[in-house]
Amino acid sequence: MRKKNFAVILSGCGHQDGAEIHEATLTLWAIHKNGAEFQCYAPDIKQHHVLNHMTGQEMNEKRNVLIESARIARGKIASLATFSPESADALIIPGGFGAAKNLSSYAFDGAKCTVNNDVATAIKAMHAAGKPIGALCIAPVIIAKVLGDVTLTIGQDPGTADNLAAMGARHQPTLQGEIVVDRERKIVSTPCYMLNSRIDQIAEGADKLVLAMLDLME
Amino acid sequence: MRKKNFAVILSGCGHQDGAEIHEATLTLWAIHKNGAEFQCYAPDIKQHHVLNHMTGQEMNEKRNVLIESARIARGKIASLATFSPESADALIIPGGFGAAKNLSSYAFDGAKCTVNNDVATAIKAMHAAGKPIGALCIAPVIIAKVLGDVTLTIGQDPGTADNLAAMGARHQPTLQGEIVVDRERKIVSTPCYMLNSRIDQIAEGADKLVLAMLDLME
Repeated sequence: MRKKNFAVILSGCGHQDGAEIHEATLTLWAIHKNGAEFQCYAPDIKQHHVLNHMTGQEMNEKRNVLIESARIARGKIASLATFSPESADALIIPGGFGAAKNLSSYAFDGAKCTVNNDVATAIKAMHAAGKPIGALCIAPVIIAKVLGDVTLTIGQDPGTADNLAAMGARHQPTLQGEIVVDRERKIVSTPCYMLNSRIDQIAEGADKLVLAMLDLME
Repeated sequence: MRKKNFAVILSGCGHQDGAEIHEATLTLWAIHKNGAEFQCYAPDIKQHHVLNHMTGQEMNEKRNVLIESARIARGKIASLATFSPESADALIIPGGFGAAKNLSSYAFDGAKCTVNNDVATAIKAMHAAGKPIGALCIAPVIIAKVLGDVTLTIGQDPGTADNLAAMGARHQPTLQGEIVVDRERKIVSTPCYMLNSRIDQIAEGADKLVLAMLDLME
């Protein structure tokens, strides 16, 4: 049987201004561990900003989301503008502030955020094709903004849960390593670092998410 | 019983000019998975250079090894100059070209390389205290340069194995996910991306390495 192929959308490299590195790496690990393949993508755009991850202070630098994401993907990455939904069996978006600052404006605009056009197009196309979509950490807000009527989790944070409701989605609280599966809409989510977590709990959530998505393909 | 504490030396963020992200992340995962704790360190120095990980071309930028390593450590990192060997039960150095370009000059000088002074001091102090040291991918060359008389693996590459011999070390070839344990000197190594590997094989090697190091503490 042909191996299933996951498209993974990265948003930079580092949780404060890009993709959360542990979540992204453990998503790729979970895909390989469960016998599937991946292709990484990122939008070819400037990062919203560059933060020093020791101090949280802004650095006087410009970085590109696609080029920085290539660090996580070991160079095996393509511009999201080239993504073809026919090439993938499923789509995953790891978390980190990159999802809320580069892939969308959620960090600044909350429920009134906008979503990067290539990201929104990929989500709509995969959903229309009946293919599963997974989102980790804060990334479920993007799915809620694009699709509205979905059930998902961002852990326990009441403010974020309220914003999901304002976008037309339903929130289910979760603890470390748990997932929420919207079987009807084929959306799987897990809270990761939206909760204070050990790295093995991030792995547990990513592994369950990938397994649930493989199950939804059957 | 007190949890064992691993010191992890990072060398930037991205395999071409810094720490290999999957190896570093999966080292931290393996430490948590096996019930231990970690503290990350990196030297507070400029990176040798900054490479675009899509093209391999040098970028006209300057980055700091400690600040970039903080992306992998989620900010929980200290300058290697502050490392106290009393604070740690073991030391691990993940791979990536950062080990050969920032922590040492191996990428340029081979067996005649120099090792960053704080890195060499940490290795010598941990070794003198009888505490286990682990090295992934290309990082074993640093252990060989500092300690000389050790047995370790860098996978299969004959040129690197010759350089290890020239530094006074003994090489044992390995395949994906395997480790070499020098029980007498308490050195554990695993080849990771020195071989063409899937990410779950990197996890397997990191997990076995951490388990072997915990065993050497007993």
